[in-house]
Amino acid sequence: MMAQDLHHMRHALMLAARGLGEVAPNPAVGCVIVKDGVVVGRGRTAKGGRPHAEPQALAMAGEAARGATAYVTLEPCSHHGHTPPCAKSLIDAGVARVVVATGDPDTRVNGEGIAWLRMAGVEVTTGVCEQEAAELNAGFFLKVRHARPLVTLKLAQSLDGKIATATGESQWITGKPARAFGHLLRARNDAILVGIGTADADDPMLTCRLPGMEGRKPLRVVLDTRLRLTEWSKLAQTAGEFPTLVYTSAGPDKGGSLEACGVQIARVAKDAAGRPQVEAVLADLADRGITRLLVEGGAAVHASFLNAGMADRLAVFSAPMILGGAGLSAVDALAALALDEAPQFVMTDRRALGADLLVTYARRG
Amino acid sequence: MMAQDLHHMRHALMLAARGLGEVAPNPAVGCVIVKDGVVVGRGRTAKGGRPHAEPQALAMAGEAARGATAYVTLEPCSHHGHTPPCAKSLIDAGVARVVVATGDPDTRVNGEGIAWLRMAGVEVTTGVCEQEAAELNAGFFLKVRHARPLVTLKLAQSLDGKIATATGESQWITGKPARAFGHLLRARNDAILVGIGTADADDPMLTCRLPGMEGRKPLRVVLDTRLRLTEWSKLAQTAGEFPTLVYTSAGPDKGGSLEACGVQIARVAKDAAGRPQVEAVLADLADRGITRLLVEGGAAVHASFLNAGMADRLAVFSAPMILGGAGLSAVDALAALALDEAPQFVMTDRRALGADLLVTYARRG
Repeated sequence: MMAQDLHHMRHALMLAARGLGEVAPNPAVGCVIVKDGVVVGRGRTAKGGRPHAEPQALAMAGEAARGATAYVTLEPCSHHGHTPPCAKSLIDAGVARVVVATGDPDTRVNGEGIAWLRMAGVEVTTGVCEQEAAELNAGFFLKVRHARPLVTLKLAQSLDGKIATATGESQWITGKPARAFGHLLRARNDAILVGIGTADADDPMLTCRLPGMEGRKPLRVVLDTRLRLTEWSKLAQTAGEFPTLVYTSAGPDKGGSLEACGVQIARVAKDAAGRPQVEAVLADLADRGITRLLVEGGAAVHASFLNAGMADRLAVFSAPMILGGAGLSAVDALAALALDEAPQFVMTDRRALGADLLVTYARRG
Repeated sequence: MMAQDLHHMRHALMLAARGLGEVAPNPAVGCVIVKDGVVVGRGRTAKGGRPHAEPQALAMAGEAARGATAYVTLEPCSHHGHTPPCAKSLIDAGVARVVVATGDPDTRVNGEGIAWLRMAGVEVTTGVCEQEAAELNAGFFLKVRHARPLVTLKLAQSLDGKIATATGESQWITGKPARAFGHLLRARNDAILVGIGTADADDPMLTCRLPGMEGRKPLRVVLDTRLRLTEWSKLAQTAGEFPTLVYTSAGPDKGGSLEACGVQIARVAKDAAGRPQVEAVLADLADRGITRLLVEGGAAVHASFLNAGMADRLAVFSAPMILGGAGLSAVDALAALALDEAPQFVMTDRRALGADLLVTYARRG
């Protein structure tokens, strides 16, 4: 593998990542076209998923695409949608070589894009930055393969794992830079989920309030078994502007006032405790096109996702303070009580955010 | 400040640090002697505190010390002990310049060492790497100024702040590299303290079991209000080889069998709950020459030190697993319950140790 290939693919991955949170149900793809060592075109999946990365990069390159190398983070599509297949566009533009980070598991593609290119005499190199590309589109892949979104649990806790004091004080444990990063996480996800306890206690907006990112409107989701969310909550009051969805086990006679505010109400299979079942919620979210879900608590919701084996990623913000054993634990009691049954993760990144620490984890195995 | 000064002082600090845990009640000092850009002598406080760093470095330098520069991490002493004062030795050796990181607050020195040097015509530069030197000897400084050792709390927890499962399983939450680093922490401290709950549950040795460091024998301390430690515990059984001290509130009629094993028993002032008072324990340890104390739990002991405002440093080992709310919190309920009264720290370092993370903190303010 050439150093140049790595360099240009990383560029394409960087472009692709900008689309996370606004391209669902499509994958976030980046494309860089290089001719004689010079970048002549670049593109990424546009908001809403169209146009794809490749036609944008080809349009920018124009005639320079002929004989050039295209770096694409995901296998070019081979199916006609609203636009011609990208594999065909690359061939028609006379691209000599295509470097692909990872294949597209979509049954309509699944190797066909690469096969087309090779049949047309285009040189194809695969597997460049494959792991990074797989991570980038982990949500899209999970949706295609397992009909559920990628789930990230966000914990904002004291260094001893408490998310509130004994009296319920939680604003603010982490500082401004950590909270701003939390809003960036929201922007990179298609949906944000909280339990009714958190909705009640914090009356949150669950919006992305970062300069320049106010336009990001991830779906706001509340798990609300008995439909306790009131029409006076900020979530309900702003449901006309920011899409809002409540999963409940309550009967169809309830929820009219919320629906009048613009809140969608969904009823899915219940778990043993009568609550909307985690797996059913995730399947329904995937049906709605959600590929990346950020779970912002509280402790009971985190435990539900961990018990279901559905916590794929963790974003743990730790403040340099100790709240002690009377504080509220970040995660409720789990079903598994033995040490060797505890949910295991692998540390993937750590960074200081002001006085706080952010450590990210991926589920092990 | 010259780059060369920084370079040589860091060398001296590195030497000094090797003495932590085996030089108490003396400070850990390093000395590097440089002539025409070449290191001609180096030394550090020897085991037990004598000889000092300077005479060792001077002996190595020999005649080359004449006209040389000496880098010393702590102000050279000006008092006669078992050996002549180091300031005098530097003068007698003809050293032209002495660079000092920080002053010695010992009332027998306290600026006099530097004054002697200057009176003798030696050029003296102070304050080079002062902060690093102050951190290195934080224990010695606290003992001299406040008659107590530096206290480091060690927490080995899941990423959600639990030190054991609901059923008390704790071996092992962290992996081998983290546990080896824990032994290194022991070697760098003069004493290791646990509560009787931990002594009972884990029957620990509290020794340093690192290759090449078996000779380090920090004082093993147990807080044991009712003198429940049995003569059959590993601590008691090995008290002949490894010094062991128990603080209790029990009457003088108890403890004979422990003392027969070689365990020392001490009685200090009690707190409101009848337990040995943290401040009194620390004062007594300082009296015994302890400058650095590592507190290894459990949760009740950590809370006692935090409540007393006596947790100067934290070493938090986090394993990439979640134990959930049924697990045992790393720190018991604190006296302060409000968010703005929580003990605050500043992150000073973080490093991966195998799959685990070590984050160190210093008390804020």
